[in-house]
Amino acid sequence: MAGVQLSGLALAVTRAGGLGSLPAAMLAPQSLQAEVAKLFADGRKPVNVNFFCHEPPAVDREREVRWVQSLQAYYDAFGLIAPAVGGPAARQPFSDSHADVIEPYAPPVVSFHFGLPRDALMRRVRSWGARILSSATTVAEARWLEEHGVDAIIAQGLEAGGHRGHFLSDDLSLQSGTFALLPQIVAAVKVPVIAAGGIADAHGVWAAMALGASAVQVGTAYLLCPEAETTAVHRAALQGPAASHTALTNVFSGRPARGIVNRAMRDLGPLSPHAPAFPLAANAIAPLRKHAEAMGSGDFTPMWAGQNTSGCREVPAGELTRELVRLI
Amino acid sequence: MAGVQLSGLALAVTRAGGLGSLPAAMLAPQSLQAEVAKLFADGRKPVNVNFFCHEPPAVDREREVRWVQSLQAYYDAFGLIAPAVGGPAARQPFSDSHADVIEPYAPPVVSFHFGLPRDALMRRVRSWGARILSSATTVAEARWLEEHGVDAIIAQGLEAGGHRGHFLSDDLSLQSGTFALLPQIVAAVKVPVIAAGGIADAHGVWAAMALGASAVQVGTAYLLCPEAETTAVHRAALQGPAASHTALTNVFSGRPARGIVNRAMRDLGPLSPHAPAFPLAANAIAPLRKHAEAMGSGDFTPMWAGQNTSGCREVPAGELTRELVRLI
Repeated sequence: MAGVQLSGLALAVTRAGGLGSLPAAMLAPQSLQAEVAKLFADGRKPVNVNFFCHEPPAVDREREVRWVQSLQAYYDAFGLIAPAVGGPAARQPFSDSHADVIEPYAPPVVSFHFGLPRDALMRRVRSWGARILSSATTVAEARWLEEHGVDAIIAQGLEAGGHRGHFLSDDLSLQSGTFALLPQIVAAVKVPVIAAGGIADAHGVWAAMALGASAVQVGTAYLLCPEAETTAVHRAALQGPAASHTALTNVFSGRPARGIVNRAMRDLGPLSPHAPAFPLAANAIAPLRKHAEAMGSGDFTPMWAGQNTSGCREVPAGELTRELVRLI
Repeated sequence: MAGVQLSGLALAVTRAGGLGSLPAAMLAPQSLQAEVAKLFADGRKPVNVNFFCHEPPAVDREREVRWVQSLQAYYDAFGLIAPAVGGPAARQPFSDSHADVIEPYAPPVVSFHFGLPRDALMRRVRSWGARILSSATTVAEARWLEEHGVDAIIAQGLEAGGHRGHFLSDDLSLQSGTFALLPQIVAAVKVPVIAAGGIADAHGVWAAMALGASAVQVGTAYLLCPEAETTAVHRAALQGPAASHTALTNVFSGRPARGIVNRAMRDLGPLSPHAPAFPLAANAIAPLRKHAEAMGSGDFTPMWAGQNTSGCREVPAGELTRELVRLI
């Protein structure tokens, strides 16, 4: 949920009895510091801090130049100067600098997306007693995560919004819907499995438990909560007919992520062979997004959402959390 | 399940208390006659006869010639003569000739794939009191089917094996996993909803009911039953590591269908822009399939399977049926 929530939503979920989660992938060290300070302002809470742990890509200047060039018509139409290539990536992988910021607060749960960080970093996170989670999109990834010592596995079904967490293969056809993936991961590993993807309401939570989940991870349903930082264009899309059509796209970041289909996805992808490696594709889109959003348009905004937006409600996150668990 | 089962499997399921189903899409009138005769040999039973109801495509001779040419290297390698283009399609849409065959037996349930047949045919099926089912892969298709008078809707999640049943749009990104699709269809229509896709065992059945299904449709789990006509190469694939990787492919028929990834899918697709329109792509593959199967290879066999083959067991279909419903 990087980009659509900060500590406010996480705290609201935790106060209602859930495990709130702070997505740190897009937070610079100072912002991360400010958010974890709020998260742990009144003591150690059951809360999770989530990081990406991708390998930073080798910069392919030519590819980036071509990507910017392919967007030139939009810059021209909006009266914008094309951005220089080679800018810093908005998404940074988990590193010692991140660990320096969170270690004093000793978050009890730390989760990763795109595999796990290197051994030294894993040991550092373990050193303050944190439980470690990561996402699997296939049975093979679940087995790999278990072998590498995670405490629980998030089974990320193909319905889930945002970035796919795959890390052993880029072949999207290896990935399954929640209904197929979840029970097969439950059968393959001994650690608890957290279901993600398509879970929108109390019946979804109940069904996930019936398939063997020990817990569920719900994202999309919280996007309209007042505590979320979801942009106005994203909120509007979630409440309109556009929400019924999501797709996996790499045009916003360079990696496949599920979002509501919009102009950028239609024109450039949804999966483009020309997008620079993750996370470098984002830089060229950023000025277009900013310009379009200022005009009230979500044409260039990544509007991450899962395939089941029926649970999105404009209610406080605590109320939504209690509602989600009412049948279990 | 056209091609992998006949009346034997359907009867075994019905005798165990399920609604057995005879897939008629690939049966010539004489074979259909023989199978329905067996199905209803001792009276009217709760059994379903399933038909495809696609629009037969305009023949594009040039496209078919190019498709055959693209397979020439395989014919050469196997010492085969390339088949003539323009042969009859192995899959025929539901027609008055089919209705002539089944009407005397008055099957109590008739289901369709790819929408519904024309009004006159619908009225004919209704005339003997049959209940009519059809598959929806989106909420829009479910609403359309309800408006056109079906008695129940099969919500076909993206996990399901075999042909996708879409009929309003060819855009596969509109289709969702079962966990997302099922509850949204349940919320959108008043008729009962039958869940399909990824349901492999009793927990899957329970979870589908938790998501609002009135019933479930299970296919893949029956493929190893002794009553199924599943080929030896298909059975072997289902029991090996290959079963964990399925994909949607159009190389066997011209329409996307989910099967275990094999050489034909890897070499030619899995989704090829060159495949002739459904069902004409099948003719060019047929001799390769026959040759390869005779050598014990499934390289050119459509080995339809869903994304969850964990429920496939070599047990009688009646036993499997009772096992599937043990939690409800």
